[in-house]
Amino acid sequence: MTASLQDSSDSLRSAKPLRYVQTAHLADPLQLEHHAVLQGVIVAYETYGQLNAAKNNAILVCHALSGDSHVARHNETDDPGWWDLVVGPGKAIDTDQYFVVCSNLLGGCRGTTGPGSINLETGKPYGQDFPTITLNDMVEVQRRLMDHLGIQRWRSVVGGSLGGHQALTWAIQFPHRVQGVVALATSPRLTSQALAFDVVGRNAIRQDPHFCDGQYYEHQGPEVGLAIARMIGHITYLSGEAMAKKFDFDRLHPRQVATEFEKVFSVGSYLGYQGDKFVERFDANSYIAISMAMDLFDLGSSRQALAAALQPATCRWLVLSFSSDWLFPSSQSRDLVNALIANRTQVSYCDISSQCGHDAFLLADELASYGEMIRGFLGQLDPKAPGCQPSQDDEAYETTSIFRQHRLDYERIGELIPAGSSVLDLGCGSGALLARLKQGQHGPLVGLERDESSILAGIRKGLDVIQADLNQGLAAFADDQFDFVVLSQTLQAIDDVEGIIREMLRVGRTGIVSFPNFAFRRLRKMLAEEGRAPKSTGVLCYEWYNTPNRRFLSIADFEEFCQQKRIKIHRTIPLNTEEGIEVLDNPNLDADLAIFAIGRGEGYVERGVLHHGEGI
Amino acid sequence: MTASLQDSSDSLRSAKPLRYVQTAHLADPLQLEHHAVLQGVIVAYETYGQLNAAKNNAILVCHALSGDSHVARHNETDDPGWWDLVVGPGKAIDTDQYFVVCSNLLGGCRGTTGPGSINLETGKPYGQDFPTITLNDMVEVQRRLMDHLGIQRWRSVVGGSLGGHQALTWAIQFPHRVQGVVALATSPRLTSQALAFDVVGRNAIRQDPHFCDGQYYEHQGPEVGLAIARMIGHITYLSGEAMAKKFDFDRLHPRQVATEFEKVFSVGSYLGYQGDKFVERFDANSYIAISMAMDLFDLGSSRQALAAALQPATCRWLVLSFSSDWLFPSSQSRDLVNALIANRTQVSYCDISSQCGHDAFLLADELASYGEMIRGFLGQLDPKAPGCQPSQDDEAYETTSIFRQHRLDYERIGELIPAGSSVLDLGCGSGALLARLKQGQHGPLVGLERDESSILAGIRKGLDVIQADLNQGLAAFADDQFDFVVLSQTLQAIDDVEGIIREMLRVGRTGIVSFPNFAFRRLRKMLAEEGRAPKSTGVLCYEWYNTPNRRFLSIADFEEFCQQKRIKIHRTIPLNTEEGIEVLDNPNLDADLAIFAIGRGEGYVERGVLHHGEGI
Repeated sequence: MTASLQDSSDSLRSAKPLRYVQTAHLADPLQLEHHAVLQGVIVAYETYGQLNAAKNNAILVCHALSGDSHVARHNETDDPGWWDLVVGPGKAIDTDQYFVVCSNLLGGCRGTTGPGSINLETGKPYGQDFPTITLNDMVEVQRRLMDHLGIQRWRSVVGGSLGGHQALTWAIQFPHRVQGVVALATSPRLTSQALAFDVVGRNAIRQDPHFCDGQYYEHQGPEVGLAIARMIGHITYLSGEAMAKKFDFDRLHPRQVATEFEKVFSVGSYLGYQGDKFVERFDANSYIAISMAMDLFDLGSSRQALAAALQPATCRWLVLSFSSDWLFPSSQSRDLVNALIANRTQVSYCDISSQCGHDAFLLADELASYGEMIRGFLGQLDPKAPGCQPSQDDEAYETTSIFRQHRLDYERIGELIPAGSSVLDLGCGSGALLARLKQGQHGPLVGLERDESSILAGIRKGLDVIQADLNQGLAAFADDQFDFVVLSQTLQAIDDVEGIIREMLRVGRTGIVSFPNFAFRRLRKMLAEEGRAPKSTGVLCYEWYNTPNRRFLSIADFEEFCQQKRIKIHRTIPLNTEEGIEVLDNPNLDADLAIFAIGRGEGYVERGVLHHGEGI
Repeated sequence: MTASLQDSSDSLRSAKPLRYVQTAHLADPLQLEHHAVLQGVIVAYETYGQLNAAKNNAILVCHALSGDSHVARHNETDDPGWWDLVVGPGKAIDTDQYFVVCSNLLGGCRGTTGPGSINLETGKPYGQDFPTITLNDMVEVQRRLMDHLGIQRWRSVVGGSLGGHQALTWAIQFPHRVQGVVALATSPRLTSQALAFDVVGRNAIRQDPHFCDGQYYEHQGPEVGLAIARMIGHITYLSGEAMAKKFDFDRLHPRQVATEFEKVFSVGSYLGYQGDKFVERFDANSYIAISMAMDLFDLGSSRQALAAALQPATCRWLVLSFSSDWLFPSSQSRDLVNALIANRTQVSYCDISSQCGHDAFLLADELASYGEMIRGFLGQLDPKAPGCQPSQDDEAYETTSIFRQHRLDYERIGELIPAGSSVLDLGCGSGALLARLKQGQHGPLVGLERDESSILAGIRKGLDVIQADLNQGLAAFADDQFDFVVLSQTLQAIDDVEGIIREMLRVGRTGIVSFPNFAFRRLRKMLAEEGRAPKSTGVLCYEWYNTPNRRFLSIADFEEFCQQKRIKIHRTIPLNTEEGIEVLDNPNLDADLAIFAIGRGEGYVERGVLHHGEGI
């Protein structure tokens, strides 16, 4: 993050005309969701790269509240675009490979019809007579542009913040015309807090004496009100940490900028400057129209309502949030993901660790995560993608590997799972087990994982990997959603063991659990004869004071646990991984690893108080 | 939290004159910190309860940005006060016991001299000619009121938010006149984010065309600007969760209030109403003057600077923050506490778990925590307080107790600590060990604890208990700050064992560690003969799947650890707690609990990479 006055969401351009903008005139009147009709709608757009012969490499990038069609520079001499970091030759959205389209929003002030356009009925700008518009209306304009360009189906629709709202709307309104959606830093609807900030901004604009009910185009407009709205916006786009980094060190040294606003503090000079710059390039009526469309966007407040709203969406999803984003908090992306899971829609999700706040999706700081996840996701949407090729190497990368040659446990687990089964892998790492299953005939395969880089590795394999904390339970998943739920060498690091086992047996018909056997002969001996905390190789290679494991159990312990909880053990596979064999006699003494296939037994209590999660 | 329109920080009163306000006229001119001089200053105040003969039962309550002297109702027919929950007969600040004083701030608009007062030089209200005032100036006015009332020393100065800034200023400026400080939801200076919101609010006021450079008293004032500032403020006083609870369920149903502001959303009608009400009772110039004083308040940005600023403060402290307060985030209270610790000042601290945001200190939701902590702290400031009376009962309450009759381990630990020693107890619970030490001759005694109710119990005993996560290290404490650092039966639940041991030996000359011995005969037998995860009584009473313990170690393991890390073992006390004896032979086999006294050995590395904490 830079400490400069220039914010990345405010690109370097002034309001000068953009050189590469094309326009399309919509032949038919636009019937709006709120009943009004707009005549003679013009849409301004830019394109990058080449549409291929099959016309199946087009990607729609959607801009946010204050953006425009200039997503990237067209060449070295061109003005910077607002997402140059992501869109361009060789970049995450690679214009050597894809045909990228970005259009200015309906209601905007950068070429597409908006409140500043001439109302044909009056011969004057619409002003506040511009009708209420919605996300559906905005996307309908983009759909007509799509037809105009002769594109049948977007490879993907990509957008952050309000751009994400457009992507969601595309998936719902035109499911057959979208192959994939990438939704960044967005939400199914605004929080009441975010809504509140928008309301105050609009109040500042409308109560500005220069607003004149929106008919200010022939004189000074509501410049103070718009600047105030923009200042409020800027505060919400940054995290508290980012603000501290930018302004704490020299708080009493305002930057030397020309502004009528307060310049006592450095943060004040920044806000004043940002407010002033925005007024030069943006129209207050557009700000009201677009922010109101965003505030009215609402896919539902309950998971049921949200799932119902998303029911039509059939595309694959990549949902990304940023940990310090408080305007579109990660919990809202999780709501979205939970609803997609409930609909059994293919989705990958990651909450990217970031200090940058809502603006993170526009900045370089976390590009290595979100950019590469976008690249990996788009690559796997290609009908000619090589698909899943797990390597020996890849399996060896698993941190829990205790195997030198091959994963005997994965082999055995694989043998337990018949072709065509659906599988949920809890703590899937970089997806080695799922990739192995994906090579054969299979049903839906889903991985849950906590680690960001492992999730990226899974996405690159074309897997659906969802970031989740297993201690929160599996509430996102329906009863019996999967044939198998696998917990491979992860039980020993789980806080809420009873909770996770109960959840496994709720969402899966069969659970497969593997763990190191703490009563293995060598381990017993260490405690009994040497009086020392047992340690070994593999997941037990740590010292008592630094092991990530927190549960120590034997095969006998797990068997008793199953008996107590009325869990049926279908199959036990005790392994001696050092010798590479299955142990037939005395497993609790001679096996160092055990695989259990379990299910609900007679008298099993379906749900208990331990089921406390709300989703992923 | 109620879902009503009325926010508790906005009491039910309109701007009508308050019945019980008294005024004092300052005889001498007030020399302000920023060089100007104010003549003829008047201070408006209210008092509650009776000043005792010794004049040592007076408590100063300081109000926040928009409050006034009416902290509580004087009788049943009186208007509500802004802190009726806390101040009154039998309440946490008990007016049957204390003489409570609350004055309107310098710069205010409720009786004390402010920008709306007549400037004697011009015969007109000051307006923007009112000089820049600071927290020091505000407190100087309170100090003169104190003299006027004949009070030598406040039993305590109590305040939240800006009220907390006043309390901090008192402790620094007039250390001998304050026995205790209670600082709630406050900070050593505002975050840049909080500052930014204030700047936008002031911009909205000053750029309102009705502001007229502050000379608006004879016509309409900057009502829109002030209302906008208040709306922004209201958003920041509530947490996101609180906003969701209040407005998510009926977001498109604005309440029926008369306001010119946007009424599309329920949250909008709330903000419009709050803005309008505020304009009726508050003066825009006062808002600018007081918020600017708050924004200029700055005790330093580094811990060193902050500690230096707090150096004069000799009183005892109770610092309370609220977990969902994002305007005055808990980290800022921790900065304050860390600086006080660095100064070896007596302080108790708790981050009270709350969903209410910054307003929590004004609301009933967490009153049982913050109110009782205030009551307990004030009670222990009484020179006639009964002091520390730990009971047998109290020790039995300790969750880790494995003793039926008495705490043999506490006895032995107590014997290791000579009279007059300073002691830091890590994971002190409700303070039983410290209370035991406090009964004898002792140096500074400090407890660290995570659990809120245990902290309350410790405060009630008159102990200094600081909320802390031991896994964050002890960076707040100086090298060799204590003679002894105790970690009693807590090691087995620690994540970063190496880190905490290293920290113990940095801040203490001697470390005392006690833990259950995992190689105790019965436990060995369970694993060796039965092949079962060992369990026992006391801290080892849990099942493998639900134990809070995550470290399993034997006496031999700990001895080897000490040898590897060049830690000197001064003394080992192996106990068999069931038989109530010290074990002389074969401790690793026959002791179920061990106490180690340790110190830095030869070749010990003072600081390693494991020291990663930033304070409590």
